[in-house]
Amino acid sequence: MNSDIRKILESVRAGSVSVDEALLEIKKDPFLDLGYAKVDLHRKIRQGAAEVIYGSGKTPEQITGIVGALRDAGQNTVLITRLSSEAARQVALVHPLDYRPEARAGIIGSIPVPDGIGTIVVATGGTSDIPVAEEAAVTAEVHGNEVLRLYDVGVAGLHRLLNHMDDIMKASVIIAVAGMEGALASVIGGFSDCPVIAVPTSVGYGASFQGLASLLSMLNSCASGVAVVNIDNGFGAGIIAGRINHMAVKQ
Amino acid sequence: MNSDIRKILESVRAGSVSVDEALLEIKKDPFLDLGYAKVDLHRKIRQGAAEVIYGSGKTPEQITGIVGALRDAGQNTVLITRLSSEAARQVALVHPLDYRPEARAGIIGSIPVPDGIGTIVVATGGTSDIPVAEEAAVTAEVHGNEVLRLYDVGVAGLHRLLNHMDDIMKASVIIAVAGMEGALASVIGGFSDCPVIAVPTSVGYGASFQGLASLLSMLNSCASGVAVVNIDNGFGAGIIAGRINHMAVKQ
Amino acid sequence: MNSDIRKILESVRAGSVSVDEALLEIKKDPFLDLGYAKVDLHRKIRQGAAEVIYGSGKTPEQITGIVGALRDAGQNTVLITRLSSEAARQVALVHPLDYRPEARAGIIGSIPVPDGIGTIVVATGGTSDIPVAEEAAVTAEVHGNEVLRLYDVGVAGLHRLLNHMDDIMKASVIIAVAGMEGALASVIGGFSDCPVIAVPTSVGYGASFQGLASLLSMLNSCASGVAVVNIDNGFGAGIIAGRINHMAVKQ
Amino acid sequence: MNSDIRKILESVRAGSVSVDEALLEIKKDPFLDLGYAKVDLHRKIRQGAAEVIYGSGKTPEQITGIVGALRDAGQNTVLITRLSSEAARQVALVHPLDYRPEARAGIIGSIPVPDGIGTIVVATGGTSDIPVAEEAAVTAEVHGNEVLRLYDVGVAGLHRLLNHMDDIMKASVIIAVAGMEGALASVIGGFSDCPVIAVPTSVGYGASFQGLASLLSMLNSCASGVAVVNIDNGFGAGIIAGRINHMAVKQ
Amino acid sequence: MNSDIRKILESVRAGSVSVDEALLEIKKDPFLDLGYAKVDLHRKIRQGAAEVIYGSGKTPEQITGIVGALRDAGQNTVLITRLSSEAARQVALVHPLDYRPEARAGIIGSIPVPDGIGTIVVATGGTSDIPVAEEAAVTAEVHGNEVLRLYDVGVAGLHRLLNHMDDIMKASVIIAVAGMEGALASVIGGFSDCPVIAVPTSVGYGASFQGLASLLSMLNSCASGVAVVNIDNGFGAGIIAGRINHMAVKQ
Amino acid sequence: MNSDIRKILESVRAGSVSVDEALLEIKKDPFLDLGYAKVDLHRKIRQGAAEVIYGSGKTPEQITGIVGALRDAGQNTVLITRLSSEAARQVALVHPLDYRPEARAGIIGSIPVPDGIGTIVVATGGTSDIPVAEEAAVTAEVHGNEVLRLYDVGVAGLHRLLNHMDDIMKASVIIAVAGMEGALASVIGGFSDCPVIAVPTSVGYGASFQGLASLLSMLNSCASGVAVVNIDNGFGAGIIAGRINHMAVKQ
Amino acid sequence: MNSDIRKILESVRAGSVSVDEALLEIKKDPFLDLGYAKVDLHRKIRQGAAEVIYGSGKTPEQITGIVGALRDAGQNTVLITRLSSEAARQVALVHPLDYRPEARAGIIGSIPVPDGIGTIVVATGGTSDIPVAEEAAVTAEVHGNEVLRLYDVGVAGLHRLLNHMDDIMKASVIIAVAGMEGALASVIGGFSDCPVIAVPTSVGYGASFQGLASLLSMLNSCASGVAVVNIDNGFGAGIIAGRINHMAVKQ
Amino acid sequence: MNSDIRKILESVRAGSVSVDEALLEIKKDPFLDLGYAKVDLHRKIRQGAAEVIYGSGKTPEQITGIVGALRDAGQNTVLITRLSSEAARQVALVHPLDYRPEARAGIIGSIPVPDGIGTIVVATGGTSDIPVAEEAAVTAEVHGNEVLRLYDVGVAGLHRLLNHMDDIMKASVIIAVAGMEGALASVIGGFSDCPVIAVPTSVGYGASFQGLASLLSMLNSCASGVAVVNIDNGFGAGIIAGRINHMAVKQ
Repeated sequence: MNSDIRKILESVRAGSVSVDEALLEIKKDPFLDLGYAKVDLHRKIRQGAAEVIYGSGKTPEQITGIVGALRDAGQNTVLITRLSSEAARQVALVHPLDYRPEARAGIIGSIPVPDGIGTIVVATGGTSDIPVAEEAAVTAEVHGNEVLRLYDVGVAGLHRLLNHMDDIMKASVIIAVAGMEGALASVIGGFSDCPVIAVPTSVGYGASFQGLASLLSMLNSCASGVAVVNIDNGFGAGIIAGRINHMAVKQ
Repeated sequence: MNSDIRKILESVRAGSVSVDEALLEIKKDPFLDLGYAKVDLHRKIRQGAAEVIYGSGKTPEQITGIVGALRDAGQNTVLITRLSSEAARQVALVHPLDYRPEARAGIIGSIPVPDGIGTIVVATGGTSDIPVAEEAAVTAEVHGNEVLRLYDVGVAGLHRLLNHMDDIMKASVIIAVAGMEGALASVIGGFSDCPVIAVPTSVGYGASFQGLASLLSMLNSCASGVAVVNIDNGFGAGIIAGRINHMAVKQ
Repeated sequence: MNSDIRKILESVRAGSVSVDEALLEIKKDPFLDLGYAKVDLHRKIRQGAAEVIYGSGKTPEQITGIVGALRDAGQNTVLITRLSSEAARQVALVHPLDYRPEARAGIIGSIPVPDGIGTIVVATGGTSDIPVAEEAAVTAEVHGNEVLRLYDVGVAGLHRLLNHMDDIMKASVIIAVAGMEGALASVIGGFSDCPVIAVPTSVGYGASFQGLASLLSMLNSCASGVAVVNIDNGFGAGIIAGRINHMAVKQ
Repeated sequence: MNSDIRKILESVRAGSVSVDEALLEIKKDPFLDLGYAKVDLHRKIRQGAAEVIYGSGKTPEQITGIVGALRDAGQNTVLITRLSSEAARQVALVHPLDYRPEARAGIIGSIPVPDGIGTIVVATGGTSDIPVAEEAAVTAEVHGNEVLRLYDVGVAGLHRLLNHMDDIMKASVIIAVAGMEGALASVIGGFSDCPVIAVPTSVGYGASFQGLASLLSMLNSCASGVAVVNIDNGFGAGIIAGRINHMAVKQ
Repeated sequence: MNSDIRKILESVRAGSVSVDEALLEIKKDPFLDLGYAKVDLHRKIRQGAAEVIYGSGKTPEQITGIVGALRDAGQNTVLITRLSSEAARQVALVHPLDYRPEARAGIIGSIPVPDGIGTIVVATGGTSDIPVAEEAAVTAEVHGNEVLRLYDVGVAGLHRLLNHMDDIMKASVIIAVAGMEGALASVIGGFSDCPVIAVPTSVGYGASFQGLASLLSMLNSCASGVAVVNIDNGFGAGIIAGRINHMAVKQ
Repeated sequence: MNSDIRKILESVRAGSVSVDEALLEIKKDPFLDLGYAKVDLHRKIRQGAAEVIYGSGKTPEQITGIVGALRDAGQNTVLITRLSSEAARQVALVHPLDYRPEARAGIIGSIPVPDGIGTIVVATGGTSDIPVAEEAAVTAEVHGNEVLRLYDVGVAGLHRLLNHMDDIMKASVIIAVAGMEGALASVIGGFSDCPVIAVPTSVGYGASFQGLASLLSMLNSCASGVAVVNIDNGFGAGIIAGRINHMAVKQ
Repeated sequence: MNSDIRKILESVRAGSVSVDEALLEIKKDPFLDLGYAKVDLHRKIRQGAAEVIYGSGKTPEQITGIVGALRDAGQNTVLITRLSSEAARQVALVHPLDYRPEARAGIIGSIPVPDGIGTIVVATGGTSDIPVAEEAAVTAEVHGNEVLRLYDVGVAGLHRLLNHMDDIMKASVIIAVAGMEGALASVIGGFSDCPVIAVPTSVGYGASFQGLASLLSMLNSCASGVAVVNIDNGFGAGIIAGRINHMAVKQ
Repeated sequence: MNSDIRKILESVRAGSVSVDEALLEIKKDPFLDLGYAKVDLHRKIRQGAAEVIYGSGKTPEQITGIVGALRDAGQNTVLITRLSSEAARQVALVHPLDYRPEARAGIIGSIPVPDGIGTIVVATGGTSDIPVAEEAAVTAEVHGNEVLRLYDVGVAGLHRLLNHMDDIMKASVIIAVAGMEGALASVIGGFSDCPVIAVPTSVGYGASFQGLASLLSMLNSCASGVAVVNIDNGFGAGIIAGRINHMAVKQ
């Protein structure tokens, strides 16, 4: 596999292959087959993101094995999401692990120095939304973003949000995390002129229908500049916010 | 029928029936059978409301007939909701009609002088919500309430709402009418300490699902003090707001 | 924080700030940041309600901490909803707690003497609806309302409801709590001329879909004067009923 | 085809086939293929019902053709449901037609003398439910049942229903037709000890979702003895009510 | 309470009250308040059914208490549905209990001799539907019906059903119990000319959505003569089938 | 474009490219850009199917243009689905068109001689399902399949289906088309040992929810060997049935 | 039972019954009643499939009993699906069992030598879809099919799928197993010209709604040649794919 | 109003108000009340966007009036979305209008020279998605973005998309517009490392449920870096994509 990439790069150096062609070639490239998973060793090249392991439904042994393969391939930082504290304890026996219980996430390797355009603000409507928000925040930090957390600023006490107007207005991207009626996204979207990534959460009961109410609410936001990810998908919000925050740098 | 009521009242005067019993008796009482509808001539006594005719699905002739029966029975004011302009034109040939096209409502007789506790504020998120709001406002006015309209104050431009904080705070009841994500109810509910009646509207498209998004949003409001009526049910909101606004007077 | 309010009040006394402006200023005011929650010390002023702690998802330590902060700030009565008996036992070690197992609610401090307009009737369709009804009843009592409980008066045995016609008719507000088909709200709404707050419950099975059937039923009530809160939201019903019952007093 | 049946019957007379076997054989029997429809000439034997033509989506010519085939086969009475007034006019040119515009139904031939156990009561919540109720009533009448109509007796004015308690209690079967929240079925089911067939209608708006609200409400009825047919399915209700009402006679 | 009834009956004997009036009076009558439940001692008179206790959500002590009150009031047979085996064991310590584990039902007192018109056939699509079917069968038996069980005759092996054509054709009422796609009701409805009560069950997975698929399927049955009860509602099916089967006897 | 393919084929002849590689190359190949559509000239090679034009939403001019381009590229037969009779009339002015009004489909060019394994049976529950069934039948015929139509054999009159047992049993593939409760797929699936493609239709009303009831029913079929396509998707059923029927030939 | 079949076959030999009639007769034939299940001993004849026991909800004793009856009747291979490892351990005490934990399936008897047309490819989007895919694969293998597994080739890393283009193109049938957005079926359907059986899985969270998202996605596939089975229904996919793969052989 | 802003700006110049405070002040600022709408004259400052008029539900006169007010206030470019061709014709009589029929959008004033970071690619699955895509494209162009259109590149013919890999890879933001199963977003998201805004469309039929299928599909995308806007919301996608594309410039 490595030899494949070396060949491509040598062709580039030799001028027989253009840089663009090489990049395309590499993107079509290989992965390591561990039996229980096809580990994508080049995703950072292809998608601008460190490898992330979705921990839910994987045994600690499987996680440990994937981490080992990635580290062997030179990956500096590995993020493990949806990692239970029990699994974390077992993974930590093999790899040095920075476990964040609120985010249910584990980090192996160092968190990079922020190099994005600005600050990503992660705001939540209530305290129960914090686990999803933390997953978003940690994901963004692992991908080189500075993150500012504004928790429990829901619209039922709008003065809490108004107190942080400066932060809202200075943000380069805002991740609005809310369950129940999800109005936070609309209110933030109305105040701000930066892209807003809305994350509905399954917080609520009764007619919240496990996050459906806030999902629909956010999709129908009367404020423009709002896009939505799946219910409880803090990880997805962190990824796209991170990409947005690195746009100028990329070019 | 009238003789029935006379008997009851004579029994009250004679002391053989208490006032409460009489009231109860009257409440169990009669209605006029027009063939196509059982007209409830005593609803005002029973429910504290003037008779209202739901115009949708009734012919102008039927509406005219019911109005006539009600007027004969001494009803001063009759409200006809969901009345098309075509039907209104025909009804107006028979009964003097005050037609409100935006509310799709017609009023026969005089609007009573307001005698409620305070002012009912009717607020909308956008201009498209106005027909529903007007139905609520006219319904409330016909039942003796002072109404203040605050239209197009949705949360996407929160400063428009903040400009009217005084009105919000002085209201005795607030009717919050909004489609799309329906966040208006939560934001108003967070500012205000009076009862808020939320009316989801079918305004919106796509995942608004004809008002489902705002309905669920309002039911899951993180602000307390909010209760919800059916989608586009301006009439229902006007009725309950009017009852709330007349509580002290009733006792 | 207190100094902020003092400044405002001194300005009022000095005449440089009007009462209304001061009230508005206070409403925009502060909250105590405990790290795990932003405690709103002025909610009573802003929304006319004592602070309520939503116990679900909070540790006993967190609850105890919030209670302490509120008591320090002079709050007489604190209501904790969705409080499990286990958590209650632990909270009771620190603060004297009046625990109501049926309502899954705990009260710290004294229940105020009722000072509302009249009596709030809390009615249920069946015995399984009682926990939700008790949450509503206790919430209303904690906020200064007299409450009359009419349990197990569902429409399948209408004579049980008819037996309590007097209570229904004397109520200032009625909270109708029902699962299954939720017809109680419509029947009560047909009899009564006071505002009816309907609470669908998740009681039922099969096509009740965790309360969806009664929610839709109540939203479509053919009786006017009915507004609906979220499924199982006894707390919300108690709050808005309490506000309605205090309207005349407020003015 | 007739010859097939003759053979079966001759076998019965000859004793080589039992009556039960013959009936079974006949039930497996033939139908007339008109090209556009397989007309079931023996359905009366197989299901105890006259042939019914579902008029919706059939041309007047097709309806006329099917009626002709049925009449030729000796069918006395033919019911055509969902028959528009336009189509009725054209059918009436060929066959003498008793058209009932409210039921959107046409009858060819005579309505049989009632020979059921008792009276089928058809009750509706409102006037808008009458078309569905009439379809049920006419269907039942065509199948030999006496029908009593109680229209506009919805639970919002329960006294209208209480006025007809005698009728409710004497019914052999009750068909409860209601849209909106469909509470009529539960209230009638609570009063009555006869089988109740509930018909949800699509009457309503907003969160009635074209009859879903009343459908779910009726399925979750807290009264026992209630079973439900499809939304707006007056025909189905008339059929099963008629079968119930003919039970004793059949044996 | 008893004295109330005695008075009524004496009035009847004295001629001052007609039998019908008396019956109506009794139907509006009393119930025993045990604190945790209003026990309806006259339901048999009012609805033609023995008292049934819905065991789910009640403690063994509560069940035992209600049974005692009913037995004291002269009730011969008491059916307890949704009764877990653990609760049954405890109830059996106080009252002699005939527990049917498959039906999750307990019977106290004797099962009456069948006195209905004919036989109620209870058919299931598969073996997993048997608990719901047994609840229906036991309910019917306790109310004086002869029951014939045809289990595991689903349409995927139609010959199993065809083998029982005689039973299907002789039934006075058929209860068709099926999960998954619920086609059993339509096929039986096509063969039979007696009323069919369809019971969707929550048996299935994936897009069965806990019984929604079979519920919708049964409501849309192309066979006429089918009415539907709630998902898994074997009890409801048993009740209405029993009433149908007792029609002629009642008159 | 043609030159591209010629090059590939020449390489194959020269041995520098294997047949499989060539086929793969061709499959990645070109399409004709008409501005309003990218016409796929090689789909027959890639997917074994003649080009099909989805007529809905295209103007007669656009359809005519696409047909022209396809015919120029050597396509013998073109199928146009969802073609209104108005559009058909206009297309027929330019290209000789065999229009099938029931299927709402037009055929240009000759229908190929059937060359599949056996016969595809297309069965419908009722007459209203025929348009969808015809779309399936015509699609299959255009792709070289022999088709046998069994219409109006729904389960409510199972004898109609039993009459055609031989056809069912000899089929190589069966397409079961049904609306309402969609039980036809299960019953046919229980009788047959060939693959069954089920097509739910939007035929029905009320709780059929535009075909949802039959869709869910078919997905939950208790008979194995059944797979389902989209509601009203006769075309999709015809395509996959045709592919199945050509399997052995392909190898 | 056997004697029944013998009689039929003797009649065939004697010429009094044709082969087709005999086959039909056998198909209508018997099953063994074990009390808890009607075991279908002739399903292999009727549907071309070995008997399969759906293990979920059956006790190990019941499973063991059914296996015994089937083996006694001469069945070579028995497949038990949805078999927990605990139940497997107990069944293995009585019958030699080949248990596949990933598929949650047990096999008794030998897996037949593949005799289908070609290879069935089973592809999954992710690793979490493997249990469903394995159920499909084992089911197909037990029914005489060669199976090629392509796991973890979801569209988020399309190069993984492109790497296996040869396998995709050589397949006789493809089973596409995917949760989340289920796009795998469309992409494979676009590449391939063989029948594609799509299996949505309940893998995902939030707005996947337990597989609804992938189910709807697959039903709406823009690629033709795709049909869908129930969510997580690997067994159903294996059955129909196996039948398709045996088509030519059957004729 | 203008004087208000002048005051603020003078305070800034005087140093008594910081730039940030001034910006905040302006954002809380005024709007012009036309009676039928509150026109927000400072939205460009507040949200970085030109004013957009949602044309649906407004009369040509209202649109013309709003445009006039905006132009008077100095707005260079006004975008009118959801503008019918009829309304466009009337607006064009008053203001010079550049009408784009496919996008159903009108532009008044000049389209600014692109000044974003890079190119926004707008891709569609099919030709029917083009109106939504055009709304997105025109919205982005009006807000100063360069747009590249890639239409009809759906996954059923993946080679069409692969042909444009270079464009996909060079994009700064991609808007993926697709109905039916919406797989386009996942496939593009898998190839690309830039933010992807997914727009589900209501294109499709049957179980697409007016765009629900593609909405759920996109929300559950297995590719990271994808966020979703409302069904058919091309405008919303254009706005957020434009904001992302202007990030670096803004700082």
